[in-house]
Amino acid sequence: MALVVQKYGGSSVSDAASIKRVAKRIAAAKRAGDDIVVVVSAMGDTTDELIDLAQQITPLPPSREMDILLTAGERISMSLLAMAINNLGVKAKSFTGQQAGVITDAVHGRARIVDVVPHRIRETIERGQVAIVAGFQGVTSDTNDVTTLGRGGSDTTAVALAAGLGADVCEIYTDVDGVFSADPRIVPAARKLDRVSYDEMLELAASGAKVLVLRCVEYARRYGVPVHVRSSFSTHTGTLVTNEPAAEGPEGAAVEQPIIAGVAHDRSEAKITVVGVPDVPGKAARIFQVVAGSGVNIDMIVQNVSAAATGLTDISFTLPATDGATATAALSEHQPDIGFQSLQYDDTIGKLSLIGAGMKSHPGVSAKLFAALSDAGINIEMISTSEIRISVVTRADSLDEAVRAVHTAFELDSDQQEAVVYGGTGR
Amino acid sequence: MALVVQKYGGSSVSDAASIKRVAKRIAAAKRAGDDIVVVVSAMGDTTDELIDLAQQITPLPPSREMDILLTAGERISMSLLAMAINNLGVKAKSFTGQQAGVITDAVHGRARIVDVVPHRIRETIERGQVAIVAGFQGVTSDTNDVTTLGRGGSDTTAVALAAGLGADVCEIYTDVDGVFSADPRIVPAARKLDRVSYDEMLELAASGAKVLVLRCVEYARRYGVPVHVRSSFSTHTGTLVTNEPAAEGPEGAAVEQPIIAGVAHDRSEAKITVVGVPDVPGKAARIFQVVAGSGVNIDMIVQNVSAAATGLTDISFTLPATDGATATAALSEHQPDIGFQSLQYDDTIGKLSLIGAGMKSHPGVSAKLFAALSDAGINIEMISTSEIRISVVTRADSLDEAVRAVHTAFELDSDQQEAVVYGGTGR
Repeated sequence: MALVVQKYGGSSVSDAASIKRVAKRIAAAKRAGDDIVVVVSAMGDTTDELIDLAQQITPLPPSREMDILLTAGERISMSLLAMAINNLGVKAKSFTGQQAGVITDAVHGRARIVDVVPHRIRETIERGQVAIVAGFQGVTSDTNDVTTLGRGGSDTTAVALAAGLGADVCEIYTDVDGVFSADPRIVPAARKLDRVSYDEMLELAASGAKVLVLRCVEYARRYGVPVHVRSSFSTHTGTLVTNEPAAEGPEGAAVEQPIIAGVAHDRSEAKITVVGVPDVPGKAARIFQVVAGSGVNIDMIVQNVSAAATGLTDISFTLPATDGATATAALSEHQPDIGFQSLQYDDTIGKLSLIGAGMKSHPGVSAKLFAALSDAGINIEMISTSEIRISVVTRADSLDEAVRAVHTAFELDSDQQEAVVYGGTGR
Repeated sequence: MALVVQKYGGSSVSDAASIKRVAKRIAAAKRAGDDIVVVVSAMGDTTDELIDLAQQITPLPPSREMDILLTAGERISMSLLAMAINNLGVKAKSFTGQQAGVITDAVHGRARIVDVVPHRIRETIERGQVAIVAGFQGVTSDTNDVTTLGRGGSDTTAVALAAGLGADVCEIYTDVDGVFSADPRIVPAARKLDRVSYDEMLELAASGAKVLVLRCVEYARRYGVPVHVRSSFSTHTGTLVTNEPAAEGPEGAAVEQPIIAGVAHDRSEAKITVVGVPDVPGKAARIFQVVAGSGVNIDMIVQNVSAAATGLTDISFTLPATDGATATAALSEHQPDIGFQSLQYDDTIGKLSLIGAGMKSHPGVSAKLFAALSDAGINIEMISTSEIRISVVTRADSLDEAVRAVHTAFELDSDQQEAVVYGGTGR
């Protein structure tokens, strides 16, 4: 008998019919003998509708009130799901984040979980009942105020509860079959991965794979919670995220072949080039100080070789395109003291990342990657690497071709094509 | 500077525009110098929509889950209202029933308030901020479970909070101008009452006037909370409910005229006649035992004079028509031991009640009432009286005419006709 935390996103509980379908799956799991704790997101578009409503009232709603408003969504889905399970003859009770003991800091809108004290959930399990918990929400310990966890918050709730309860596995139900070696919309031959390590999953999430958010994977890694990403529309085994790296090489691959988990891509970044920076010590540091001071995270950096004749150099970096205006304004403001000539902004870039624990000990991986892109006639604009990841920036309109070329070069292509759509999870 | 609790029903906050309108009224009251605590119901049809959603899942939702579901409604309206007030430059914070310290028993769906510990509301007032509280909901003290108070629950929340805070007045905003001497839809000449006593208001509420629910008035009377029933669509003074009876007689009335508050009517009752009951001691008691045992409250009772030849009598009583099937089934089950001949069920009755503290000392009131009905050719089927009320049962299709005749006979008609619609409050 295992203790299983299951998380269902908004698309899995979008209407009464889907809630009943999910209830059947939960009731079946309970009847099969497992103890089940369910974390649920708001129904379908509820959150967007509530945001719209708030926008009709004021363009700048106080974040405390916004959190109270948005948490109404899970209150609706969790009680309806509990009703549906009870209707199948299996006892179920729903709990708010507060009732479930999800304690957060007071940063409304993107609170972080600081503790999980799931007394009532344990009690419910011990009575042989299913506990349904509202995802995405918590409560501050001092003021008892309602908070929300921000994007991917329900996944994080599920992993945090699984850690707090010592669950055997945290199942994240989504609208895809698991984690893939690439986005099947771009690479029809992408393979579903049976296993990835926390580190690989972190790199995948950070590199644009949308199936799990970064913080959820970080939480799972910190507490060693096995996460099973799977489809709520089928009973297929999905992808298990644990300490073990992606085990299987592609079929027929030689034993010494580096083991690569997959190819991620990201179209959400932009590139800023600071042109004509005086090539003297401290100027680069100053640029990144200014950008960091405006609250913007940067990703990749390239400094060109200085032209000796002018004593000037160019510095390029990438950042989320949504932060482009903020960073540009901050730099322009400091143009006099930094002393650069101009700024270039480019949001037509794409980023490709090759990820796999197997590349640590295989120096040939970068060479093979560059060769594959070069053979496909694709120009590389920037490069960055970690122990288990190589990322390159290309033109946005070459990105799909780049992903396919690399996927094939590393022999990741599957024999059968999976007929799934690769999408993000809700919240 | 007064401490005012204001309650707005669902029709006052049915959409973003009405929420903004209500926010303006609250901000103005706050700016005028009063401390304001607001109790708010769910927006417009939200509650009905949530009930529909639950019905799509199961015909018999567990009441604990139903309460969690329904309380999502006030969570939405209260946070939006707080946003709207903040947007006008007045600080406001919203609180759930739990956060506001509304402690109830554990009877889900119709919980009773057992205590109000409004620490956070006091704190908010002391900071000079407006506190917005979700109506209709509370929390159990032992299990921390969410409860709802049932019909008229938000009015009761408002009065209970006003009592707990020692507020100067509890303003109940509704879609009519106050409490009327009769339903203006039936009696166009009905007058708005400037004052009624708790006792008169209790009798009015119990006799079919829908502007305030019985339990809310009971609560106000017990704790001596002055209640001001007024329109959220105008700034007119409404009706003040206090210990003082309706002060003003109709204009031009003689000083010795009994002071009558108004004429209420009720079409929601039915009459059951138990035919051929053996006229021996204990049979009537047994009938009402059986009915009470089925959880049904009865209102008026008439026992006919026994026909000496047969030793049989008929007993009639009225009850809410919604309980008709329950009571009939219970009586039929006990037909053998009670020994009656048959049951007659009649849901085409109407009840008219004349209410006023002034009738206590005026024995002529009943005579005048009966004469007025007789002059209008209306037959009286049952009669019951209290110190400040006389109720009669008529045919349902004579009820409107009866109300008009009595209203005129007691010189309650106003000179001007009020152009308002007399409707119920939300919850």
